[in-house]
Amino acid sequence: MSRPTDPAPYFSLHVFVCTNRRPDGTPRGSCAGHGSESLRDYLKAKAKEAGLKDVRINSAGCLDRCGLGPVLVVYPDGIWYGFKTHADIDEILETHLVGGGRVERLMLTPEQGR
Amino acid sequence: MSRPTDPAPYFSLHVFVCTNRRPDGTPRGSCAGHGSESLRDYLKAKAKEAGLKDVRINSAGCLDRCGLGPVLVVYPDGIWYGFKTHADIDEILETHLVGGGRVERLMLTPEQGR
Repeated sequence: MSRPTDPAPYFSLHVFVCTNRRPDGTPRGSCAGHGSESLRDYLKAKAKEAGLKDVRINSAGCLDRCGLGPVLVVYPDGIWYGFKTHADIDEILETHLVGGGRVERLMLTPEQGR
Repeated sequence: MSRPTDPAPYFSLHVFVCTNRRPDGTPRGSCAGHGSESLRDYLKAKAKEAGLKDVRINSAGCLDRCGLGPVLVVYPDGIWYGFKTHADIDEILETHLVGGGRVERLMLTPEQGR
């Protein structure tokens, strides 16, 4: 948790998209195996297009919730999403990253993926 | 910022270590070019050894503060560190990840790397 004496945030929102790839056929699967790389590219392009300031879309290694993938997490909010389509990304962008809201239908709960 | 109605955090602390690698000789440099991968491995091993629960050490793509690298960021706290040695990692682990404090001498300010 941030403290009053901490420096101001460097990014107002920092999004980490799992782009971990396991070998094809791995039972656990992986986010990249489910198309996360092109969805990350799409999110990056749309965020740029929206002119979002101080919002960074990042790639990340395995976020350890592979069965729910592709997944991303938005910090400092700590909200996790599972997403599959451009429409999912559009909704996360507009509702959460632009609007500061939550996309309830795509949110993961802490119980999922344990 | 999290809201009272948000799900509980999936990880209590989520650390992202930049492991981006640019080609050798790139003027901007890169975190992997400055040894971030082996320092990440060291941090992962030490965090495991310390038995930290619900703390995840993650790799990340370029965090866009290359000149200060290697860098890592601790969420949801939003604290950034530049680090170079095992001793730096030990101090971040003990003071911040275990103790919940801050390693002032290694913290980056928002003005750095803009």
